[in-house]
Amino acid sequence: MEFGLQISQKIGFSPWWSNAISLVDRLSTRVAEFFSKVKKIGEDDPRRIGHSFKVGLALTLVSVFYYVTPLFVGFGVSTMWAVLTVVVVMEYTVGGTLSKGLNRAFATLLAGALGVAAHQIAIHCGEKGEPILLGLFVFVLAAAATFSRFIPEIKARYDYGVTIFILTFSLVAVSSYRVDELVQLAHQRLSTIAIGVVTCLCTSVFVFPIWAGEDLHKLVAGNLEKLASFLEGLSAECFAEKGGIENLEGKTFLQAYKSVLNSKPTEDSLANFARWEPSHGRFRFRHPWKQYLKVGALSRQCASSMDALATYIITTSTKSKTNTDPDLPLRIRAACKEMAAESANTLKELSTAIRTITVPSAAGRHASAAVAAIGKWRDALSDDTALPQVLHVATTASLLADLVLRVQKIAGSVEELASLAHFKQPEPPVHDAKIKPVADEESPSHLSITLEK
Amino acid sequence: MEFGLQISQKIGFSPWWSNAISLVDRLSTRVAEFFSKVKKIGEDDPRRIGHSFKVGLALTLVSVFYYVTPLFVGFGVSTMWAVLTVVVVMEYTVGGTLSKGLNRAFATLLAGALGVAAHQIAIHCGEKGEPILLGLFVFVLAAAATFSRFIPEIKARYDYGVTIFILTFSLVAVSSYRVDELVQLAHQRLSTIAIGVVTCLCTSVFVFPIWAGEDLHKLVAGNLEKLASFLEGLSAECFAEKGGIENLEGKTFLQAYKSVLNSKPTEDSLANFARWEPSHGRFRFRHPWKQYLKVGALSRQCASSMDALATYIITTSTKSKTNTDPDLPLRIRAACKEMAAESANTLKELSTAIRTITVPSAAGRHASAAVAAIGKWRDALSDDTALPQVLHVATTASLLADLVLRVQKIAGSVEELASLAHFKQPEPPVHDAKIKPVADEESPSHLSITLEK
Repeated sequence: MEFGLQISQKIGFSPWWSNAISLVDRLSTRVAEFFSKVKKIGEDDPRRIGHSFKVGLALTLVSVFYYVTPLFVGFGVSTMWAVLTVVVVMEYTVGGTLSKGLNRAFATLLAGALGVAAHQIAIHCGEKGEPILLGLFVFVLAAAATFSRFIPEIKARYDYGVTIFILTFSLVAVSSYRVDELVQLAHQRLSTIAIGVVTCLCTSVFVFPIWAGEDLHKLVAGNLEKLASFLEGLSAECFAEKGGIENLEGKTFLQAYKSVLNSKPTEDSLANFARWEPSHGRFRFRHPWKQYLKVGALSRQCASSMDALATYIITTSTKSKTNTDPDLPLRIRAACKEMAAESANTLKELSTAIRTITVPSAAGRHASAAVAAIGKWRDALSDDTALPQVLHVATTASLLADLVLRVQKIAGSVEELASLAHFKQPEPPVHDAKIKPVADEESPSHLSITLEK
Repeated sequence: MEFGLQISQKIGFSPWWSNAISLVDRLSTRVAEFFSKVKKIGEDDPRRIGHSFKVGLALTLVSVFYYVTPLFVGFGVSTMWAVLTVVVVMEYTVGGTLSKGLNRAFATLLAGALGVAAHQIAIHCGEKGEPILLGLFVFVLAAAATFSRFIPEIKARYDYGVTIFILTFSLVAVSSYRVDELVQLAHQRLSTIAIGVVTCLCTSVFVFPIWAGEDLHKLVAGNLEKLASFLEGLSAECFAEKGGIENLEGKTFLQAYKSVLNSKPTEDSLANFARWEPSHGRFRFRHPWKQYLKVGALSRQCASSMDALATYIITTSTKSKTNTDPDLPLRIRAACKEMAAESANTLKELSTAIRTITVPSAAGRHASAAVAAIGKWRDALSDDTALPQVLHVATTASLLADLVLRVQKIAGSVEELASLAHFKQPEPPVHDAKIKPVADEESPSHLSITLEK
């Protein structure tokens, strides 16, 4: 029995011990992973650390109003509103802080005045009528203001202001039923909110300022550079004299344009904030930020074309077999190389021009050279009069074939959704066709041909 | 002299009068425009009007706590927090309200507890040490919490919670210096915030609920339908036996896919909110919302392919001249028509399957037919062994040519930016090349050919 007890002790003890060790192990790996992730976020953009300290600084500054008795006596409990304002108004960029601060200040002023007016009207309606009328006012104004947020222009610029308007009007109108010195209270709140906004603005502008306009400027220039690196890679790897379009799937340059495709929300919000920013560095107050959005939209269209091209190249490169070498493709290839290289040069020039705020001088020359290369390609083809006709239809067909494969992928994905979400079976099971996932190597979707080496 | 006076009176009077009339005219047109816009926003989605009334209702409900004396006595001025909570927590969808409400409740609880703990530590440091230590706590926690918002996972789901955490901790820690009955105050605030959250949730869930999940479901299905309508239009207008690719620029079906390209932010936010929603209608709590995002991402890729195809077709259709009719293009065109039509059928089937939550039965058949059409196109080409080689290079070149034109458009746009933003001239003016804006009719960018009629 003693032996059995020892064993059971051993069994009981060992798993607990090893479990605990493995738990600690897993936990420490997790913690280490988390910290390396946090470190990376800080290293990617050290301004993030600066921003975090700025928020701490602004909060500590504004809380001095609590600690210093003569300051506190002036505002009383309303000092709370200064702290509250700092927390919600402080944004990453100067423009963001300005936009929120001004929205908050003006909305509070307007809603406070309307709230006091509502109170003045309501007190003439007697003991019982007052809360009913106040309730009606709050209902109508809150509903109207909420609806106004669906208007795109208001949503983009004054969304926060509308929230604060509803908030302040409700607070003033409703609490006017209980508070006697309403005007004094409103005055205290306004002053403390102003203190909060001013604290935020000073911290934003004077301590390592982060300008939304500058970020937008850099983002747009950087995106042009990414597009250029795709074309450079293409010209070097695909159309080089000794190169060939084979096994390109892993190449990094084929991914370069991808982040550009989803840049719209970031650009829109930066441009929205940049409008509020005062003149800073090389940017005036009325800098043409909207034009950056136009360049951004064209860049995304360009990235979309690159997506079509990259997909086509990757799909065909994986099943390249033929290796003939007539003259025609060589000439076309030279034209392709020129188109890609000159377009890359154009984009690089444009990116540098934006970065250095200099008129792009050489970009026009490169762009013209790229367009001239299109002409060379056309000339290479026009030797055979029957060919162009076929080529046009065939290009359309190639693009369509890519589309067909992408639709098939969607079909597979929806089928997966149907099984994950337990979609019901169709009532009369007429067809029992199954969607086969796309196996790129086997599908008869593309011509099994390549550029000759 | 009297005559002169009359004239000057007439001159002085008439402009003021007509100015006023034209001002009133312009103003009334503006107001009429504004109201027709507002009406359209309401008609586009009548649930917006419902939401506005719901916000008004929730606010009126929660302000009852002010008007009814026994309720007010229990909470005092803290009742304000209930009103404040309703204004900031109430969102358009149930998931949004739930996400914000839970974030607010838990962040307040956690930060409140930490704030009380910070106060307990600080009071042991004497009269002078207390504000310094409290300030230090606020600084460190606010900085750390702000930095945590840069972690993408936290930003996506708990951004609002972190704001409330900083807010509550600062308020509790800082005001603990002045307030004696801290725990009672914290208790009152928590209760009133809970009242606010519960009011919002009840109004959201029980009065015309708007589910983020259902919206996501409909959005994804609707996007598939849009893609299908592009392909249907293509098959009917471009590859019909009597049709031809000419003057397509104005056709609406060529725009059908465009809104799909920018659907990512909406889908992301809806999926984020849908995760919080309880089981409703045909959707369980753990519905695979992530799979919808996958379908959405593939739909955007598909739309990107359509963009390349539509651009190619539009550019070439405007300068179509040749009208020969060999057999080869006819066969290719038939294959194209089949690819487009069958893909459109696939997408329509998938959209209907999602809409009706039924396993897609016929979609697989249509997808296979579309892939089979790719084979037919390949067969049509393989009659001539030299052709495929040329075709591949030519397709690549076509896509590149589109890219070149898009790059040229970017160049024009940046040039416009340079003039709007007064970019400086480059130092040594070596080149004086000018970028000529792209004139689509004249640029030698594409083959001037069409499909035969």
